[in-house]
Amino acid sequence: MLKLYGFSVSNYYNMVKLALMEKGLTFEEVPFFAGQTPAALTVSPRGKVPVLGVKQGFINETSVILEYIEQTQEGTALLPAEPFQRAQVLALCREIELYIELPARACFAEAFFGMPVPEAIKDKARAELLLGVASLARHGKFAPYVAGESFTIADLYFMYSLNLACGVGEKLFGLDLLAELPAAKALLERLHAMPNALKVAADREAAMPAFMAMIAAKK
Amino acid sequence: MLKLYGFSVSNYYNMVKLALMEKGLTFEEVPFFAGQTPAALTVSPRGKVPVLGVKQGFINETSVILEYIEQTQEGTALLPAEPFQRAQVLALCREIELYIELPARACFAEAFFGMPVPEAIKDKARAELLLGVASLARHGKFAPYVAGESFTIADLYFMYSLNLACGVGEKLFGLDLLAELPAAKALLERLHAMPNALKVAADREAAMPAFMAMIAAKK
Repeated sequence: MLKLYGFSVSNYYNMVKLALMEKGLTFEEVPFFAGQTPAALTVSPRGKVPVLGVKQGFINETSVILEYIEQTQEGTALLPAEPFQRAQVLALCREIELYIELPARACFAEAFFGMPVPEAIKDKARAELLLGVASLARHGKFAPYVAGESFTIADLYFMYSLNLACGVGEKLFGLDLLAELPAAKALLERLHAMPNALKVAADREAAMPAFMAMIAAKK
Repeated sequence: MLKLYGFSVSNYYNMVKLALMEKGLTFEEVPFFAGQTPAALTVSPRGKVPVLGVKQGFINETSVILEYIEQTQEGTALLPAEPFQRAQVLALCREIELYIELPARACFAEAFFGMPVPEAIKDKARAELLLGVASLARHGKFAPYVAGESFTIADLYFMYSLNLACGVGEKLFGLDLLAELPAAKALLERLHAMPNALKVAADREAAMPAFMAMIAAKK
């Protein structure tokens, strides 16, 4: 059986978890907090979550795990088979990760954990976030899903990155990143209301107090 | 015929260019400097290079272009067919991009173009680069190629990201990032001595003066 290593507060973990649920696959969740300990680094080379455990070993990096699941498992397809359409979905995933998630992530410490982030880093993140959202506005279809008519892995990136990026935008910069994208805003709400997404969110809420206590202990 | 949009100084452009050459494919190079002009943004949603032009339209993001080429074109395979092995190669690509290339890139302006980068950004980049290289040391095989016995797209990321990251390490931090990885260092030299890599490098050298003049004009 597939094993999903990670923890329910991680947005990347939740992308893979929802993918597995939407495909109707059976999997075991293995609590794993990653980090730089020797034990963690044998599971995840960079000490990150999630990791997928399969018969042959571990697979790391969310984007790689999602493609591996598509390639090897049964269930609803979350990527088009046709190469050009597939490339458009994957490009949207990369754009959301590189140009929205990553600049937002540089500010998570201040936005969500009360640990100040240097101004130079926030300035850079703000500029990049605005360009990233503009890029999404150009490339995204929101008709009604991010890449078009079907739910794809681009929606997984969108739902679990944009919510955090919007939090950063609002808390640190007083910006509503989706102000000019009502279709994206509506989609975000609709995605988070999916039955499996509600389960993922409930697990996240349940895990949050212990996670915040762990962060507080590290401060 | 495939069209490759971009410019010969871009390391991401050169990853795709070398992939096409190694596969023995015919392609047309289309000079494209990207940026945030309306015209550029119709080709590349985030205004980046490279972009692949195919019958149906444009494909952006290097990782997506490389996979698309593997999926649709003839020639030497640069990705294993077996899903687990394929995932390991792709994970190495992601690790090099996210944990080595991107932190290094945050410092390119100072390292290569004489434009100062804020200390906070350099400090963060330095810490991330060291973790990124440690991750590569754990996951990379260098036996003799990055992912094992064959040349794969992980080698493309390695050769065109590590050389720049090493430049940043040396110029800004006085660090030899590959000091403890002699096999990686030897591979880097061997990869850059490949006949097609020498052609890519010659095109890069030829394009450099005009590129530096363009940067100087923007300062």
